[in-house]
Amino acid sequence: MAVARGPLAIIAGGGDFPPALAEIAARQGRGLFVAALDGAADPARFGEIEVTSYRLGQLGRLLDDLRRREIADLVLIGSLPRPSFGALRPEASTLKYLPHFARAFQGGDDHLLRGVVRFFEERGFRVHGPAEIAPELTVPMGALGRKAATPAQHELIARGFAMLSALAPFDVGQAAVLADHRIVAIEAAEGTDAMIRRVAELASSGRLKIAKGDGVLVKAPKEGQDLRVDMPAIGPDTLRNIAEAGLAGIALRAGRVLVGDRGKLGRLADQLGVFVEGVI
Amino acid sequence: MAVARGPLAIIAGGGDFPPALAEIAARQGRGLFVAALDGAADPARFGEIEVTSYRLGQLGRLLDDLRRREIADLVLIGSLPRPSFGALRPEASTLKYLPHFARAFQGGDDHLLRGVVRFFEERGFRVHGPAEIAPELTVPMGALGRKAATPAQHELIARGFAMLSALAPFDVGQAAVLADHRIVAIEAAEGTDAMIRRVAELASSGRLKIAKGDGVLVKAPKEGQDLRVDMPAIGPDTLRNIAEAGLAGIALRAGRVLVGDRGKLGRLADQLGVFVEGVI
Repeated sequence: MAVARGPLAIIAGGGDFPPALAEIAARQGRGLFVAALDGAADPARFGEIEVTSYRLGQLGRLLDDLRRREIADLVLIGSLPRPSFGALRPEASTLKYLPHFARAFQGGDDHLLRGVVRFFEERGFRVHGPAEIAPELTVPMGALGRKAATPAQHELIARGFAMLSALAPFDVGQAAVLADHRIVAIEAAEGTDAMIRRVAELASSGRLKIAKGDGVLVKAPKEGQDLRVDMPAIGPDTLRNIAEAGLAGIALRAGRVLVGDRGKLGRLADQLGVFVEGVI
Repeated sequence: MAVARGPLAIIAGGGDFPPALAEIAARQGRGLFVAALDGAADPARFGEIEVTSYRLGQLGRLLDDLRRREIADLVLIGSLPRPSFGALRPEASTLKYLPHFARAFQGGDDHLLRGVVRFFEERGFRVHGPAEIAPELTVPMGALGRKAATPAQHELIARGFAMLSALAPFDVGQAAVLADHRIVAIEAAEGTDAMIRRVAELASSGRLKIAKGDGVLVKAPKEGQDLRVDMPAIGPDTLRNIAEAGLAGIALRAGRVLVGDRGKLGRLADQLGVFVEGVI
């Protein structure tokens, strides 16, 4: 999708990615408006960039503000604790949107996210992915730090990605851990960090043998995952977790996983003695 | 494989299955010899049936005893904590077999099991699966108790088995849990019980919503799994675990998963209000 050059709104949840994206967008010389979601985004982390805070129940006010500023392009980025419908405390200008969100809330996270995207699109906004605005926040081809995967590790990585592809029709399997010549963990509802912890526990209890330089984490988007609002991501904690679990490194689908500041993550990888590599 | 009618040896590890198999084999009116592996099998659980105990390091003695009794057919059944090679304490008559087992020990559990089967086959024995001797120890088609899967649950079950089949080329994925219209857990190295506990934790922490009557466990052999020595199994603990996790029931590949005493398991399923069903 081509990126329009009018003003851009960033609707920001928690974590490192929203401030990083805002910084890059600000440097692109286009109008920028940052809407920070109360309870998720920390306005102090955006430095010089002006931030306006909204509660989820102030959606009507947010729409009015976007329109008044003639903003048609927006990015939704950052973590958001799944809100309870009852905690929305909608303002009067938001009440009319409740039926839309009541429907969106009745389903999984994917369903909710699709509902949010549709909500903005039906009102004339274009929803962009962070990778369209700032591809430098995704993992590139090759290693981020000094270490790269060995040929033996690349074999495990290839097998891991082939397995994730085989799972694609089943809407599951965004990540897996391979070690000891086999797949030792597959992620489903528990999330990547919990899966890595499981591998660490299996290893420390002796039920799983991970030789030095053996284990790898592979991570990729699910087929059909909407990369505009639901791009897989790793960060410093992921690196620390895999190092603690005794794994050798992480392989990611190049351009399709958010990593934030590549240089910072590469330096952390070097400190921890692990590799982070984008592969196609 | 046709079952020869000469005397049969049961080489027994731990758990409910070895005594159950011994009881059935004894009723079949053929000669029976039960070799209980020290530290795994409990001779007291075999009731009236005579049992001879062997340490792993007494393999030479076991082979001599089998030959003296003119036994050509054997079944290996029951759990065995993965022994450390150093703890074998081999007797003189066993020393010559050490190179074979040193090789078998250098690999995963599958590799070790294949090595054990080959060891006996190379010495003229026929290794049978418990399902050949006693198909009544496996799950039949249909429900074991009063409850059966609903049409909605059958849809989840079909999706679960399709997913396990898709994983077949990757030598992983013997079980999965489906709930809330999706796959919520896939088993790899952690084992079925640990996977069920994970689902229970996700549900109790509110990260996963399992409506009453929603969740199902599916379990099947891996492609290429040697059902003679490595048949998947469930037991009373599996039922208690899924009930505790709030799941509605268990679906198993009919004839290809050990359940032990079908009547007992069906009654427990009824007590717990869950279903256990064999499907093809």
